[in-house]
Amino acid sequence: MSIETPGLEAIKAARVAGAAVVKHTPVVSSITLSGMVGGTIALKAENLQRTGAFKIRGAMNKIASLGAAAHGGVIAGSAGNHAQALAFAAKQFGVPCEILVPHGASVSKIAACLGYGATVTEFGDSVAEAVEAARQRSSESAMMFCHPFDDEVVVAGQGTLGLELVDDIDDLAHVVIPLGGGGLCAGAAVAIKSQRPNVRVTGVQAAVCAPYLGVSPPAGPIITLADGIAVRSPGEVTRPLIDHWVDDIVSVDEDVIADAMIFLLERAKLSVEGAGAACVAALLSGATTPATDGTTCLVLSGGNVDLGVIPGLIRRHESNAGRRLTVFARISDLPGTVASLLAVFAGVGADLIEVEHMREGLDLHVRETGLRATFAVRSSRHGAEAIDAAIAAGYDLRRDV
Amino acid sequence: MSIETPGLEAIKAARVAGAAVVKHTPVVSSITLSGMVGGTIALKAENLQRTGAFKIRGAMNKIASLGAAAHGGVIAGSAGNHAQALAFAAKQFGVPCEILVPHGASVSKIAACLGYGATVTEFGDSVAEAVEAARQRSSESAMMFCHPFDDEVVVAGQGTLGLELVDDIDDLAHVVIPLGGGGLCAGAAVAIKSQRPNVRVTGVQAAVCAPYLGVSPPAGPIITLADGIAVRSPGEVTRPLIDHWVDDIVSVDEDVIADAMIFLLERAKLSVEGAGAACVAALLSGATTPATDGTTCLVLSGGNVDLGVIPGLIRRHESNAGRRLTVFARISDLPGTVASLLAVFAGVGADLIEVEHMREGLDLHVRETGLRATFAVRSSRHGAEAIDAAIAAGYDLRRDV
Repeated sequence: MSIETPGLEAIKAARVAGAAVVKHTPVVSSITLSGMVGGTIALKAENLQRTGAFKIRGAMNKIASLGAAAHGGVIAGSAGNHAQALAFAAKQFGVPCEILVPHGASVSKIAACLGYGATVTEFGDSVAEAVEAARQRSSESAMMFCHPFDDEVVVAGQGTLGLELVDDIDDLAHVVIPLGGGGLCAGAAVAIKSQRPNVRVTGVQAAVCAPYLGVSPPAGPIITLADGIAVRSPGEVTRPLIDHWVDDIVSVDEDVIADAMIFLLERAKLSVEGAGAACVAALLSGATTPATDGTTCLVLSGGNVDLGVIPGLIRRHESNAGRRLTVFARISDLPGTVASLLAVFAGVGADLIEVEHMREGLDLHVRETGLRATFAVRSSRHGAEAIDAAIAAGYDLRRDV
Repeated sequence: MSIETPGLEAIKAARVAGAAVVKHTPVVSSITLSGMVGGTIALKAENLQRTGAFKIRGAMNKIASLGAAAHGGVIAGSAGNHAQALAFAAKQFGVPCEILVPHGASVSKIAACLGYGATVTEFGDSVAEAVEAARQRSSESAMMFCHPFDDEVVVAGQGTLGLELVDDIDDLAHVVIPLGGGGLCAGAAVAIKSQRPNVRVTGVQAAVCAPYLGVSPPAGPIITLADGIAVRSPGEVTRPLIDHWVDDIVSVDEDVIADAMIFLLERAKLSVEGAGAACVAALLSGATTPATDGTTCLVLSGGNVDLGVIPGLIRRHESNAGRRLTVFARISDLPGTVASLLAVFAGVGADLIEVEHMREGLDLHVRETGLRATFAVRSSRHGAEAIDAAIAAGYDLRRDV
């Protein structure tokens, strides 16, 4: 394998191959983020790409490169963005597409593939098993196997994102890119540094699965918000490219990925998946620093997050921001006591979310019961005021975890 | 008041006045939405505007127009986007800003105003009271009162959004715009129709508060997801402009606004507030129809949604999509029965979210207890399969509401 392939010309050709479908996604500035971490920060909103992620860039280039060989169809194993992208690209080229997904894969992602006209088959218990099955099936049929990243044609396609950054940001100084298998990071780095060698390129891995930093996850499922970059092993094509073209590799942990997703939703108004938020996380955590001169661009590589994940992130954020107050009170078992305690909280503007009245399993005296209640409050200070009001009204209560 | 003021030249001048700050926000195509409702649909992602909404356009033009008169400061009553925009614009011009907000206003919006350097004072119980107090305070001081919409300078500023649509969309045929007080809708309609008289312009109101359609809400707080367009009365400046320049006015109800917000989050990867999602709601509900020839553009006017609102919308969506299953079971009061029933659901891949074991208040026999449990399931069919599995295992249970 080579650090010369794909080169800039191959990436420019990929831009032509994908032109009918691939969006030139917008770069949006974030003065909020600039204010928080310094420098001039821009966000490459690749979550607004067709099929919700950069993968369509590589998929279009791959099928285009196959020419007539694609007429028998394309096949891949994937539970995520590669599957949707390949299904969409196949539809554009009018060729059949089969996707093998592991059992229990995200319903919304399967639905998206079906919506693009692909055949979806459940196989095995991990993405790796589905990929191997797809490769096997390809060898026994006319369907062409399409790897999600370890293929120079795919890398060239992903690299078109780098061309857009060079076109759109005159004073580009530092680009931060999510790093999983390495297709996007390698392709974009080649596109950028072939034209502007002084731009710094940083790759970001999830701390729980950072093989480029020598951190392999234990066997079994990898639990991470950034499943899009949870790839166990660097590719044979991508590894030498990453080694040669990327300046730094850093990692981010789950808590700060969660913070980054919420920051993007609340302040940047963008829905970004965990892998896509990794670059923001790298800046928030200090794993990388913005350029002091020129623009630092963070690549928000995708937006395909299962909606079911979001409420938990929001609850965590609201608790951390002091907007949730949980109290435990010991109250006498007399009629009306619960009602009057809750009235104290209502009176100071604390909105009841959950309440549980307990009579067992606690160190309670005879004729005494427990009340555990959670309220929405405006701030930590507001929460403290609510507790003070209840104590002043004669209740025996304390802040609960 | 006049249908000639502001005119196209005033709007073009407003673009110059705001140029240092106002973003030219991107237009993104949505083939998903095009597939659902027909036509060619584009989304004007004004939720990515600075301060999260279009209001910065009018605020910049207003302060610019005041010239030296702004040196004594600006003041407004608002609980929302106008407040943030005015605070941000005042900071740009280096003039003081005071915002009066009603008691209980959104903490995150107050925090944003404070972050932009404004003074925030709580006053009264409604936005209307805060606005009147601001007007009063202005008359007693050197601070200039800034109305959120009923001011031709503000209307001209909001109209700059229309200039961008004309610049960006060659085959623009139909523009759908949220309609509250009317500043954005009037300004954009003038900008668009002065240049392209054949483009159709539709304004969208929330059904609970649609004064332009003769529907005034009852007294008291207006409960709507689209609080950004819940304005009780059309303006004196804006009403004649709306009457003259806007082709149709339609309204949308709360359920479809919720659907639209979730659609935008899940498919378009954009966080959009209720008012901003109103145009998508109008298309989803059939209140308006896309152009058969040319592009229909929906203006996503803002993205300032309190995060606390989102989990409820997601839960509703997941229930409607069959991804939540709640069951009620009558079970014998023997050790291990709850555990073994839950094991049946775990065995078919239904993930437990909530469980409650009930012994009172129900029509239960002696030695019989109730179990109410909610599971995350993949689809309605998966939910039905889980129930069948439990019945086959001998449990007496039914789907609960």
